[in-house]
Formats: sequence, C-alpha cells, structure tokens
Amino acid sequence: MAGNSFGKLFKLTTFGESHGVAIGGIIDGCPSGLTLDFEAIQSELNRRKPGQSKIVTQRKEPDTVEFYSGIFEGVTTGTPIGFVIHNTNQKSKDYSHIKDLYRPSHADYTYDKKYGVRDYRGGGRSSARETASRVVAGAIAKQMISSIKINAFTSSVGNIFIDKPYQDLDFRKIESNVIRCPDEVTAKKMISKVEEIKKQGDTIGGTITCVIQNVPVGLGEPVFDKLHAELGKAMLSINAVKGFEYGSGFCGAKMKGSEHNDLFNKDGSTKTNLSGGVQGGISNGMDIYFRVAFKPVATVIQKQDALNSSGEIVEMQGKGRHDPCVVPRAVPIVEAMAALVIADLTLLRRQESREW
Amino acid sequence: MAGNSFGKLFKLTTFGESHGVAIGGIIDGCPSGLTLDFEAIQSELNRRKPGQSKIVTQRKEPDTVEFYSGIFEGVTTGTPIGFVIHNTNQKSKDYSHIKDLYRPSHADYTYDKKYGVRDYRGGGRSSARETASRVVAGAIAKQMISSIKINAFTSSVGNIFIDKPYQDLDFRKIESNVIRCPDEVTAKKMISKVEEIKKQGDTIGGTITCVIQNVPVGLGEPVFDKLHAELGKAMLSINAVKGFEYGSGFCGAKMKGSEHNDLFNKDGSTKTNLSGGVQGGISNGMDIYFRVAFKPVATVIQKQDALNSSGEIVEMQGKGRHDPCVVPRAVPIVEAMAALVIADLTLLRRQESREW
Amino acid sequence: MAGNSFGKLFKLTTFGESHGVAIGGIIDGCPSGLTLDFEAIQSELNRRKPGQSKIVTQRKEPDTVEFYSGIFEGVTTGTPIGFVIHNTNQKSKDYSHIKDLYRPSHADYTYDKKYGVRDYRGGGRSSARETASRVVAGAIAKQMISSIKINAFTSSVGNIFIDKPYQDLDFRKIESNVIRCPDEVTAKKMISKVEEIKKQGDTIGGTITCVIQNVPVGLGEPVFDKLHAELGKAMLSINAVKGFEYGSGFCGAKMKGSEHNDLFNKDGSTKTNLSGGVQGGISNGMDIYFRVAFKPVATVIQKQDALNSSGEIVEMQGKGRHDPCVVPRAVPIVEAMAALVIADLTLLRRQESREW
Amino acid sequence: MAGNSFGKLFKLTTFGESHGVAIGGIIDGCPSGLTLDFEAIQSELNRRKPGQSKIVTQRKEPDTVEFYSGIFEGVTTGTPIGFVIHNTNQKSKDYSHIKDLYRPSHADYTYDKKYGVRDYRGGGRSSARETASRVVAGAIAKQMISSIKINAFTSSVGNIFIDKPYQDLDFRKIESNVIRCPDEVTAKKMISKVEEIKKQGDTIGGTITCVIQNVPVGLGEPVFDKLHAELGKAMLSINAVKGFEYGSGFCGAKMKGSEHNDLFNKDGSTKTNLSGGVQGGISNGMDIYFRVAFKPVATVIQKQDALNSSGEIVEMQGKGRHDPCVVPRAVPIVEAMAALVIADLTLLRRQESREW
Repeated sequence: MAGNSFGKLFKLTTFGESHGVAIGGIIDGCPSGLTLDFEAIQSELNRRKPGQSKIVTQRKEPDTVEFYSGIFEGVTTGTPIGFVIHNTNQKSKDYSHIKDLYRPSHADYTYDKKYGVRDYRGGGRSSARETASRVVAGAIAKQMISSIKINAFTSSVGNIFIDKPYQDLDFRKIESNVIRCPDEVTAKKMISKVEEIKKQGDTIGGTITCVIQNVPVGLGEPVFDKLHAELGKAMLSINAVKGFEYGSGFCGAKMKGSEHNDLFNKDGSTKTNLSGGVQGGISNGMDIYFRVAFKPVATVIQKQDALNSSGEIVEMQGKGRHDPCVVPRAVPIVEAMAALVIADLTLLRRQESREW
Repeated sequence: MAGNSFGKLFKLTTFGESHGVAIGGIIDGCPSGLTLDFEAIQSELNRRKPGQSKIVTQRKEPDTVEFYSGIFEGVTTGTPIGFVIHNTNQKSKDYSHIKDLYRPSHADYTYDKKYGVRDYRGGGRSSARETASRVVAGAIAKQMISSIKINAFTSSVGNIFIDKPYQDLDFRKIESNVIRCPDEVTAKKMISKVEEIKKQGDTIGGTITCVIQNVPVGLGEPVFDKLHAELGKAMLSINAVKGFEYGSGFCGAKMKGSEHNDLFNKDGSTKTNLSGGVQGGISNGMDIYFRVAFKPVATVIQKQDALNSSGEIVEMQGKGRHDPCVVPRAVPIVEAMAALVIADLTLLRRQESREW
Repeated sequence: MAGNSFGKLFKLTTFGESHGVAIGGIIDGCPSGLTLDFEAIQSELNRRKPGQSKIVTQRKEPDTVEFYSGIFEGVTTGTPIGFVIHNTNQKSKDYSHIKDLYRPSHADYTYDKKYGVRDYRGGGRSSARETASRVVAGAIAKQMISSIKINAFTSSVGNIFIDKPYQDLDFRKIESNVIRCPDEVTAKKMISKVEEIKKQGDTIGGTITCVIQNVPVGLGEPVFDKLHAELGKAMLSINAVKGFEYGSGFCGAKMKGSEHNDLFNKDGSTKTNLSGGVQGGISNGMDIYFRVAFKPVATVIQKQDALNSSGEIVEMQGKGRHDPCVVPRAVPIVEAMAALVIADLTLLRRQESREW
Repeated sequence: MAGNSFGKLFKLTTFGESHGVAIGGIIDGCPSGLTLDFEAIQSELNRRKPGQSKIVTQRKEPDTVEFYSGIFEGVTTGTPIGFVIHNTNQKSKDYSHIKDLYRPSHADYTYDKKYGVRDYRGGGRSSARETASRVVAGAIAKQMISSIKINAFTSSVGNIFIDKPYQDLDFRKIESNVIRCPDEVTAKKMISKVEEIKKQGDTIGGTITCVIQNVPVGLGEPVFDKLHAELGKAMLSINAVKGFEYGSGFCGAKMKGSEHNDLFNKDGSTKTNLSGGVQGGISNGMDIYFRVAFKPVATVIQKQDALNSSGEIVEMQGKGRHDPCVVPRAVPIVEAMAALVIADLTLLRRQESREW
C-alpha cells in the first residue's frame, strides 16, 4: 500500500520525479458537472512555480498542466481526471555529482536504503516538485467547495513573527509581496531576512498559518479520521514540515480549562475560538485555523560533509538554484492540501442523512 | 467511510460508547504465530484506567479485556482478533442533566448537528473511554515489534517543563510517579500543580513526549503516508490533542540550514538528530521523537454557561469524577498509537524486496 | 490488509471462529437516525441458523445477536455498531480427531500452510458459521434500503431445476418450504433429493437465484467497482460458492448481438432484460438478477482418505451434524451480501451530485 | 470512492476516455529493483490492440505506451509508475450522431443518468479502450511474478466449444491463430463463425478460459478477499463480462460431495482438482483455472431502435469499425487482470510471517 494517494472520496494519486519526463496525477471522485476555471488552476500553479521572485529558486519551469481525461467541454464528467506537467528544464548534469552521495538532511540515504535504487537527479521522488500535482488537484477542490474560503500566509520567517491575530489581517494583501505575508511591515522584515540568509549561502525556516472560513458544521469522521487529524496528516505530508498545531495549539497545553473553554452564543457559534473550529473532530462552523512549521531547506551553498555509498565522509558543496526559504512557495501547497481535506470530508458528509 | 478504523495492514477498528454495554474492537491483520503476553496487555490497560491515583478521575472501572477470537492456545492465528471491555460502572443517572445540553468545548453540539441523534451519556462515542480499545491493540502491536522500544512521558503540565533533553532521562522512572514524568524533581512540581488545579475545580493542559528507539531504516510510505505524517495523524486522533511536532519541530522553523542539518557518521547514523529519526518520510535508524500538546479537560467543576438544544444559554455546573489533567492517563494512549503506526509500517515494509 | 472487511461507506468487519467464545462484527458507516427492527434482524438469523429443519445440520444453536454500541434508544447514532453472537454449543470434543488432519476439499490444509497455526475446531475461521455476522449486517442494510426488495431462493439442487423464469414465481412462497424454493412442485422434488442424499451420507450442490427489485438508476462505480463486479465478489466470498452469473450469464456467451440487445421503452426501461439490470457497471432501473453456484458440502458421512500433518494418507470418516445441502441455509446469506453491496453503493451514489 | 483503482498493495488507477487526449494510469506499489522488459509490455498491448486481424475492429491505433516515472535506467524504483497511451485515431466525427442517443445495451443511458454529463465519443469512459491501461499494468505484474504462468484462451464462440480439458491443450498454440484458441480444429470453426456473423453485421459472444500455474500455497485473504472472489471481481470488471466460474463451477452445483472432493496425495497436491486450486479462499498449489463469459458486442451493423434524450424512440444504424466478437482481444485483458490479482496477493502474502 504505497502511499501516493490522498483522500477517500475525492482522491488524488500522484506520480513523477523531479527530473523525469513528467509529473502528474489522477483525481478520482471529483463529482461531475463542475465547470472548471482553468485559468484559476494555472494561477495556483504559478504561485508555486520556481523563478517567480528573487527570494526563491531561480530554476525556470513554466509548469503548464495538461488535462488528459475526465473533463468534456470544460465540465467534469465524474470520471477520473488525468493530468500531466512535463518537466521542461531538467538539467540532469547538475546532479551527477550526487549520484553516490547522501546529502545531510536530505532523503538520499533513506530512499536508497528503502528501495535499493533511486533516481538521484534533483532528489527524484523526494523533491518538492511533486507538490505541483497537489496544487493542481487542490485548485480543483477549491472550485468544488467554492463557498469555503481558504487563505494561507507566511506567519514567520526565522524569528520574525506577525504579532497580530489573523482577524486583524487583510488576506487580500497576501499576494502583494513576494514573501506572502499580509502584514506589510513584517513582510519587509522577512524579505530582508531571506535576502541576508541567501547572501550567506544559507537557508531559513518559517511557519505558515492557514485559515478556513465559512465551513459548514459537521465535517470530520471520528474517531480516527477527525477533521484536525486529517489536516495534520495533510500538512505533515508536505516536504520540510516539522510540526502542526490548530486552534490554541501548543499554547493550549499551558492553559486552564476555565480559560480555554469556548462559551456558546445562542446560535451555536462561540464567543472565543480556542478550539480552532473543531470539536470532537467535527467542524463546529467557526473558523478553522492552524499553523505549520517548516524547517530550513537542507541544501546550503556552503561546504558540508556528506556520506557516500561506500561509507566515506566526503566534502561537498551545494550549488545550483535553491530556495533560501521554502515558505512563500509552500503557501499555495498548504492551501491545496487543506482544500483536498475539506473537499473529501464534504463528500463524506454528503452521504450522511437522517431521512430514510 | 466512517473513520473508526486505523492502519492498513495492521488494522484496528473500534466500537463503543462511554456508557453503552461495552467497548471493544477488531484487530485485522495481526500476523499469526505471535504468543501473546496477556498480563502485559492488561497492564497497559491498567496504566490508562480511571481511579488509579489521586490526580485522575475517581471513576472506578476494572477495564478487563476479553478476547473472543483470533487467538488459539495463547497464539495469534492470523484471523481477526475480536475483543471486548464491558462497561461496568455506567452510572447513567449522572448524565441525565446534559441530555439537551451542549457543554462548552465538548463534542455535544457537533455530534448532535452531524448525526441528529446521540448517546449523551458521558460523552457517548466522543468520550476518551474509546481509547481503552486503542491501548489493547497497541499492547499487541508492541509485542509484535518487540525489538522496538516506545516510551512516552509527561514533559509538561501547564508551564512546568522538563528542562533536559530526553537523553538525560531514565525511562524506567516514568512509572515511578503518578504524573508519569521521569524527572523526579519536575514530577513533584507537576503533581503539586495538578492538585492545586483540582482544588480550584479547574483543569490544566500539558504535553507528552514520546521516544521510539531501535527503529530499522526504511519505515514510512512517501509521499502522503510519510512516517511522521502517520504519527501526526495518530496523535491528533487522540482526544484533547491540539498539536504535534517531531524532531526540531516548531523550533526548527526558527533555525538556519547550516545549523539544522544532521551530519552523517560513516555508519549512516547522524551526529545530531534534529530530523527526529525521519528523512523524506522514511525512518533513518535514529531515535524518533515527538511531542504532543493536550488542551485542558473541558469539564470544570465550576459554574459555566452552556447552550441547550432550544437555543437558550443556561448555567451549568460540571460535577462527577473528572480528570483535572488528562496527560498522565494519556501516556499509554500515546504509546499505543505510536505502536500501531510502527507495527503497520513494519508490515508494509516487509512486503518490499529487491529480490525477484 | 487482511480481508475481513466488506464495503466502503457501509462497512462490515467480522471476527470469530466456529468454536471460539463468540463471533461478531462491527458495522462502520451505517447512517444515523435509522430506527431498527430488532425482530426482523433476529428473524434473518433464524433463517440461517442450524437445526431449523430435517434437511439441515442438527447442530442446535440459538444464534442470538447482542448489540453493544451504535444504537441508542433503538435508533442508530452514526457511530460503529458492535455486535456479538456467543457460541453456545461448541462441543469441542467433536473435533479433536481432526487436529492433525487435513480433510479433503476443506480449508484445513491451506489455513495451516498460510498461517502455520489454526483453530482446528469445526473449521475455525473457515467455517460458514462466520456468515451469521454477515446476516446481521445484511439485515440492517436491508432496513436502510427498505424500498429495494431483495429475494433469493433455491433454483436448483443437483440436477433438479426450476424451469420457469423468476417472473412466474411468487416470492412469498420462498419461506413456505424447508428448501426455500418458491415453486412448490420443484420444492418437493428437491426435498426428496436432499433426503435421499442424506441417507447415503452424501451431500449435494445447488444454485441460488437472487432478484433485486426497485433499484434506482445510477448505482455502481466503474470501471473496477462495477455493480455486478461487487455483487460477484460478494457472492464468491460466501463459503462453497463456485460461480456467479448475472442477466444472460453464461447463456449470453452463446448469443448474437441482435438477439441480446435490450431495446428501450420511452421511459428508459427496456423491453427485455438480458442485461440483468446493469449497463456499463451501473444499475439501469430494471430488475437485477443473478445466479450463484454452490458446490456440495465437503463433509460426507462416508469413509474417505485424508492427509495428516506428517504427510501420511489416513482413512477418516466424517461424523457429526452436517448439512447434506447448504443451499437452503445459504439463501439468507446471499440476500445479506446483496443488501450489503446495494447499501454501500447507495451511500456512494448519494454523495454524487451536479449542483454546486 | 470512485472505482478507478484496483488492488491493495500492487495498485493500478486508470484514467482516460476512448476519444480523449490519452488514456493511462498509475501503478502504485510495484516493488523496486525489477528490471523491466519493455518489449514484452508492448507485445501484450499489441495482442489487445485494434486492427490486428480481419476478425477484429479495423480501427488502427498503434497503442504505444510511454512511461513517465517510477523507472530509472530500466529498473523500477518503488515510486509510482505513471504511464500514458495517446489516442491517435480519434475520428470524433464518427460519433456525433450518438450525442443525444442512448444505444441499446450500451452504457450511454446509465452514464448519462448517473453523471448528468458524458463524453459520448466512442463510449467515452465506458469504452473497452480503457482496458489497454490494464494490459500495461498486467504486463508489469507478470514480470513481477515471473515464475507463475498465466495462460488464457478462447474456449468458446457462440456454441462452438473446445471439447477437451485444458490439460490436453498446448498453450504455445494460443497465439498461432487469430481467435486465440489453442485447439486448431476448433479455432478454424470459431473463425468461420465470426466471419459469418460479421457478414451479417451481427456480433457473437464467447468464453475465455484462464489457467494459472505454479502458484505457491497461501495466496488469498479470507473471509471476504478470497482468492477466487478477487479473481471473480477482476473478471467481472472487464467490459461485456456476464459470468465467472472457477474449478468445477456451475457443474459443481450438480455434483455430490463424494464425487466432488479432491483427495490428497502425500505431498499435499490432490488427485483431482475440482476445487480449481483454491480451498477456503486460499491457493493450495494446484492449477487455478476459471472461465469467463462475454456477451455479444452491443454494436451491430443493423438497424435498431434506440432512445434519445428527449424520450423518443428513434431508428439508428451501427456503423464504423467494431469487433464482431470481443473474445480474442479480451484474452490478454483476462490475463492482465489475473496477473494484477496474483501480484497483489503475492505482496500481501509476503508480509505474513511466523518469525518474530
């Protein structure tokens, strides 16, 4: 049961290596009758693509998605949607030097030990390039659940944090700067930080906050497939993620029950929302919000010791076109994975009913 | 696809409400030929059961597990293991006052809206009582992967933290105190804190750290079913959990790549382990460690406003026998869920091979 | 991925061996709000139970089902329904003689080779006793899809066949005789045949025909999970089944297209129904009908050679209380499995929609 | 949970419509380290492709498979294998006349009612063109389980049957004639029959027998995922299939137990094999054999009444390039589906073990 599928009713299966012919996927279970906005899909891909600004990798790749099936005259037919993104800028030569090398904090060593063979070019399957397929599927999921609003943004880079609650932010400003932080003052600091790190040939971690609004009550499948557990798994499956918290999160672990409880209004909404929009694993209609921690990119443009397949420690130097900070390009990926979770739970919710 | 199953090859499905006839489950996929230590299973259940110390709920329930199938003369047969724990101390009267009441930060409201009907007694299905079934299955999983060591412990209560790395702790001391903290000085502070909170009729959150040792290289199924993503989902599916981080976790998001990378030793082990034993979603042979955040229990023995099903705000007062802090009783649950994840990935790993 | 679960959204997992403490199961995904008719459930079990007539096994077992969860005040709550049937008449002594014996055309040999250990008493897990759990779940499924009518009946015993189309039969007569054949003249012949076979200490095979009426258009999930493919798997999973055909079946393989095509009426119904109610794997609203072949029971009350675990051929003699013909008791099992398939596909169908 | 995936550990998901851009699929779970024989894969595709002889459709399509991922330097890497077959001969004009038409015994009506929208060109998703993707995956599965031999052949066309047991046939002759019948005398009769039927503008059904040899003991996952139940579902999922029987099949339903039981040899093999290589859902090491019934192709080159989407009965005439008998082209599809089942159960079997 190899792990390249996500979702139960709205199910994405992806394929593809960083420097193979193409990456792509199949969406099985997208309902029929959905008129797709193809520009919106490509626009999400463009948010993720390399080369879009000075603070991300300079690899240039158009990342154009082609749909092969499941859509007829612009409308989904209920049959599986096959799609492909050709890899146009493979530059395999860049990677020949790592053929027998296990780079520190990359997946080279574990893939080799697990599979005994690997496509070492650009990280192969372990490359975050795979997430482009998720963005395609997530963009379709967003269109399926169009009344629900999903906004992710960069909430910290290194130790530079937004110091406001998300309610005080204007999500329309997320795309107004290259770091994708809706607080303009903080955004500038973050961008300076990344530029400084980049000059050092180093990289830096950060966090993304995601807010899902206008969610109906009742999404989530206890006891194991709780809404926040599915979101957590979705986020932790993104490259470089080290942590996930929702609602009060780790801060909640320091609180008392009398402080933490969200008292009700008469309409079922709550006065506070430390729960983060989920009770007992089921959405309660309040905003769902969560935070995702990304480690710094492992490829630094500095000399480092690596291991080779003969068991020798050798000096290597990262080169090429890498992201000094993945966080801005990960924003659309976080949104895509959130959309996949919500779309899937929406379909599961639909088949429940109390009328027989 | 209701969410009451966990795992793919080693699969647990649970049933049961807090105050129904019984809870229990079916383990499908436990390999044959495993001689079970039934005392060890019951012992894990005893670690979780109510009434075991002054700082946990005083509800008394023996929590005796009965096995109905899948075991012959003490040995697993490869057929599904059905088991049951009868609810012996149901005291349904205790709960009649909440029949039409939605308690703040409980799942009463969401279950009612999702299902239209609910067993309101003691939280019904949303009660953490269900986790006893997980502990049974986890205890069997532990026996299946007996060479792997899983130790969880209370690492914080409120703002009282263990201020040492886990390597400086003696896991044999976890069970030496009622809070399940292996650092004795910190344990005492934590216990005092919980006693103080209990006197106030309040509750408090905390965190559990779990360390998995002696894990072979190669567990985990990228790209979606990464080892840490499965662990994250497993932990987030436990009642009251608000966050999960592994390895460097949220701290990693503040670091630079040059600081964060784990350099190799010649044998493939690493000098540091900020990765937390996982690279690219696959175990690398180093210790896996992670931290889980628990919110404070929602039931406080204080007056609070609640909502009733007629849309009125009414005053209620928590009563009965509740945990002032779930963390000590959650320690065996965290271990159980970790064991289920590792057992499942172990079976998945087994069917891989490069010899044809 | 041990194979003890059936269904995707309406999912049954069963456990239990013939002579263990109990058999039972968990139904996960039964929608909430369904008021159960418990007598109807028990009544289905009674149709399957041993000892009900002279032509079936004389083993006496009340087969009383107990529900442990998922039902509150008679109504399903949407949480998993755990149920148990205790084995009350285990008589383990009866089976000690086969401890090391592989009986011909039983599963003794294959279970031993696969699992290395087995509960040899009464066939253990391979006994058709397990199907009692399916009948419980099927009875609930029938109540969920109450507008759909499922009728199975004995259509042949040995070479005695009903020589009429099912449309000429009165399904209300199925339960009027012990062989469960609605054609009374044929029923008598079948009963005589079984009595004769029983006197010889022999057994005989037969077929069951099942008709599903009032099915809405649109059930079935191409391309792999076609309606008839799911029905076929369901039937082939029943003990002793050797074949499945639907609609024109094997006869259709002899026909010409011009003869076989079902021409439409204006309302979308068809003038003939060689298709058997399914086109392209999806129900078309016409009656679904299919036929299931059962081999003769392997236990004959005659001397036979068997193999023992030391590789010796030894003479054995079947004894005890066995069915000379499984077909009458399999009728409710066929209906139950059909109900599980239709219930599951009904829930899958529900989440489809063209309104967004 | 749309039904476009098959298998659990060796899992194929397919996409694509008859006249879309391309068809293809993803194989997830193919083990790493398998050196692929690409010619053998293309050769299987060629057995299935249209235009290969006079008695099949004259549509010309090269059916060239391109692999996009999961293979590096000719060797599988354990990552998902994405593949595509471009549709090169779409001729969409041929199908404009059926845009609003429901052809009898096609899936036009059911797809339209289920999905509300459909790609009507050439049957869209319901076309057997989709099975080309299964043949690709099956060819890889065959290479994975190379010690197991799978041979299917045409065993009947209309009422012309091979009148010998399969043991008397030389499977090497299957490919020696266009009907794929290893008995040459019968093959000639079958070919004449198909030619005659073709001249009439009619079509004819037939059966395929498949024999799987050299299967190890222990494949199959009772109680629901029995080996023969999985084979049955696999076969019933192929277009035009109406029935499945294995071992003694429907004939077994006429037999007595004393005739039907397969007595053992000392080595665990059996003197007869009415069981068809499966006991209790698990392979017993004997040959597995089964028979699959195919209905006649629904498209006849004769005038027929059809229904249109306005509810009118209109006369239509089939035209174009259709198969007068699908059976010869279905032979490689039957083998492919059998290979997928055996490959999947082989991986499931591998993770079982009795050594801990």
